[in-house]
Amino acid sequence: MAATTKERIMDTTAELFRRYGYTGTGLKQIVADARAPFGSIYHHFPGGKEQLAREVILRSGRMYQELFETILGAAPDVVTGVSDLFAGAAELLRQTGYADACPIATVELEVASSNEPLRMATAEVFESWIEAGTARFAAAGMPEEKARELAIVLIANLEGAFILSRAMRDTEPVRIAGATTIAALQAALPNAQRAS
Amino acid sequence: MAATTKERIMDTTAELFRRYGYTGTGLKQIVADARAPFGSIYHHFPGGKEQLAREVILRSGRMYQELFETILGAAPDVVTGVSDLFAGAAELLRQTGYADACPIATVELEVASSNEPLRMATAEVFESWIEAGTARFAAAGMPEEKARELAIVLIANLEGAFILSRAMRDTEPVRIAGATTIAALQAALPNAQRAS
Repeated sequence: MAATTKERIMDTTAELFRRYGYTGTGLKQIVADARAPFGSIYHHFPGGKEQLAREVILRSGRMYQELFETILGAAPDVVTGVSDLFAGAAELLRQTGYADACPIATVELEVASSNEPLRMATAEVFESWIEAGTARFAAAGMPEEKARELAIVLIANLEGAFILSRAMRDTEPVRIAGATTIAALQAALPNAQRAS
Repeated sequence: MAATTKERIMDTTAELFRRYGYTGTGLKQIVADARAPFGSIYHHFPGGKEQLAREVILRSGRMYQELFETILGAAPDVVTGVSDLFAGAAELLRQTGYADACPIATVELEVASSNEPLRMATAEVFESWIEAGTARFAAAGMPEEKARELAIVLIANLEGAFILSRAMRDTEPVRIAGATTIAALQAALPNAQRAS
């Protein structure tokens, strides 16, 4: 099934945000890359670039969260699931020439002190990811508060490692951040849930 | 002693990068904020915005590294030093309304796939920080390879936590990232060096 114009615009915008950031992405480039008429942006997003960015941030956030749920759901235990997640992230970075990382982090650092509606959209995404991680880790037997801490450890390590790996063109930071997260996870899990 | 025009331009640019990113910072705003004549930018930085950005990235990298050395040097052991580092970062974020974090990470995510000279400048800074951390941790008794891993853990956790804390307007992620780094550090230190 062919993507609608609105979907093409949002996919293209997410891709451009990953590569050039929010400020560096222009509406003209979005419509050109999405093969859409210029007016279609204001038709689908009456609030212009800011509304488009907000919807792209929230939609990308949901897509990454679904990916997280899929990977964790397919693994026999949370430790294996988190290990698969970091391995997949490292492989994707390598395959895309270190371009395809998280568009939300890039936009967030640009807008955190200059665009309150977009800053709030990124906060909404991160809070939603933290809740998803908390639910997974609590289901593996951790107290709620500890599960939330571990969800923050996971996201901070993944985002921080993306920064280093993209700069250094090397998957080493992602690999090390994965090992750090897994060690923290194993220390917080009840004995019976720890993978060997 | 009054700062020179060149120093004022670089200080102002670092501040604007932290708040608006590389693409969102214009030369006109830099000269206005630095109270410098427009021509002074090309006088001091013949390569224009890109050269200015490269020098600001490298200089900010050296300043943060000096801060790291000062904090670690003043602490009785590396665990206390790293704890002081994260506590200081959390306090600075809180005091500045979550604005003053790392300009290098912001610029890096913007340019990693679009401006190779600036991407390489950010890689140079991160590599230099990794070496500084490696030297500190090796001096505390860790094998070189393990010390390098821990330096990467520290930087990834700090940068990743900045992303979450700035979005959420909360120091909780920085506090948790500090605890994660310290746990990883303690697990890697020879017994006698571990703080209680």
